[in-house]
Amino acid sequence: MSETSDAPITITAFNWVPVFARGQVRDLRVRWALEEAGRDYRVDYLDQGQQKSAGNVRRQPFAQVPTYQEGELTLFETGAILLHVAMQSPALLPDGEHAVARANQWLFAALNSIEPHLSELAMATLFEADKDWSKPRIPGIRKRIASRLDRLSERLGEDEWLEGGFSIADVMMVTVLRIVEDDTRDLFEARPNLAAYRARGQARPAFRRALDAQMAGFTAKAPPGLEHLDG
Amino acid sequence: MSETSDAPITITAFNWVPVFARGQVRDLRVRWALEEAGRDYRVDYLDQGQQKSAGNVRRQPFAQVPTYQEGELTLFETGAILLHVAMQSPALLPDGEHAVARANQWLFAALNSIEPHLSELAMATLFEADKDWSKPRIPGIRKRIASRLDRLSERLGEDEWLEGGFSIADVMMVTVLRIVEDDTRDLFEARPNLAAYRARGQARPAFRRALDAQMAGFTAKAPPGLEHLDG
Repeated sequence: MSETSDAPITITAFNWVPVFARGQVRDLRVRWALEEAGRDYRVDYLDQGQQKSAGNVRRQPFAQVPTYQEGELTLFETGAILLHVAMQSPALLPDGEHAVARANQWLFAALNSIEPHLSELAMATLFEADKDWSKPRIPGIRKRIASRLDRLSERLGEDEWLEGGFSIADVMMVTVLRIVEDDTRDLFEARPNLAAYRARGQARPAFRRALDAQMAGFTAKAPPGLEHLDG
Repeated sequence: MSETSDAPITITAFNWVPVFARGQVRDLRVRWALEEAGRDYRVDYLDQGQQKSAGNVRRQPFAQVPTYQEGELTLFETGAILLHVAMQSPALLPDGEHAVARANQWLFAALNSIEPHLSELAMATLFEADKDWSKPRIPGIRKRIASRLDRLSERLGEDEWLEGGFSIADVMMVTVLRIVEDDTRDLFEARPNLAAYRARGQARPAFRRALDAQMAGFTAKAPPGLEHLDG
């Protein structure tokens, strides 16, 4: 456990995204972890397009949000940001070196064993929905997702959280499991313990505050040409 | 920095994979990190198919290799294993809390911002090469890979390693950048600093020992019906 830094925290987020992406942008993960840790933060909102500016690419080489700034430290990658925030907060990691390693293992599992499959489905059903190749790919992608969810469901069983008490592993896994929720509804209905796990995470007051804050940040009008994505 | 545990370390690996996967199986990452740290380990080799056995799924819920066992601790996810090994070894993380956070950021970037795109290419050129949808997808996937490699190349510049001295960030990034090497040759030729970075990693004696050890472990014959994948 490190000492809590008293440097102010600034994260980046968008002031506009299409309706289907609201509540999904990855700054939600960082906001949620900071809310659980009881840390204040301010938000540097980016206009759409500004993520590609030289100033933002200095903070985030892949031209995305969020980044995390705390004094002299600038970080990108939500996994690394959560790990850093958790090092300063007893609320976000279990006790004991082995339990911490196992919580980290689920943090990585969410990002590397679950999320890529859900991102592929989002690609096929949202971002490349108009491409000829997308529709025939969907059954195979859903099969891979179902297999991963089966294994996760078996491992979780009736446990409340992934490793001991609530931790950054749950912040990451719950937010990952919210990706393309509409297209995976039946997969969660068939695995009630996973559906309950995700609902349990989303019922936490810190999650609600984080989600409300992200939604309240969408204050800009749609950029020219994207008005139809305003819902 | 934790104290080095003196519990013996056991990892899992396969005793047979198709020729195209040899030198690519993810236990390479763990072997390399352990070689850099000067830690001994033994290997529990699995026959093809055995990864799905109840015994292995208890260690690795997604029915893969590797896992890492050290006394009472069992871990999966190569990111989490590397992080755990690095906590016990000054050779694998830079000094200072901020530098460690930045090294971790690159560890996550390799797994979540680079690898998923290379895995998609592997899907299209290897695992689903025979599907109608694969060929038309390749230009789009390669464009996304090129964009990520551009950003990585810009950020690396003429630096030797991603964050200060050699670290687990480099173990992960170099092994990720080796995925589907044959299908990305032109992309690396166009970005000589990235090609040199990858070569620098692969020239390390610890990498050579790790790769030789993985290759030496493929001692089994092809399972019935897969003889044509023996090369």
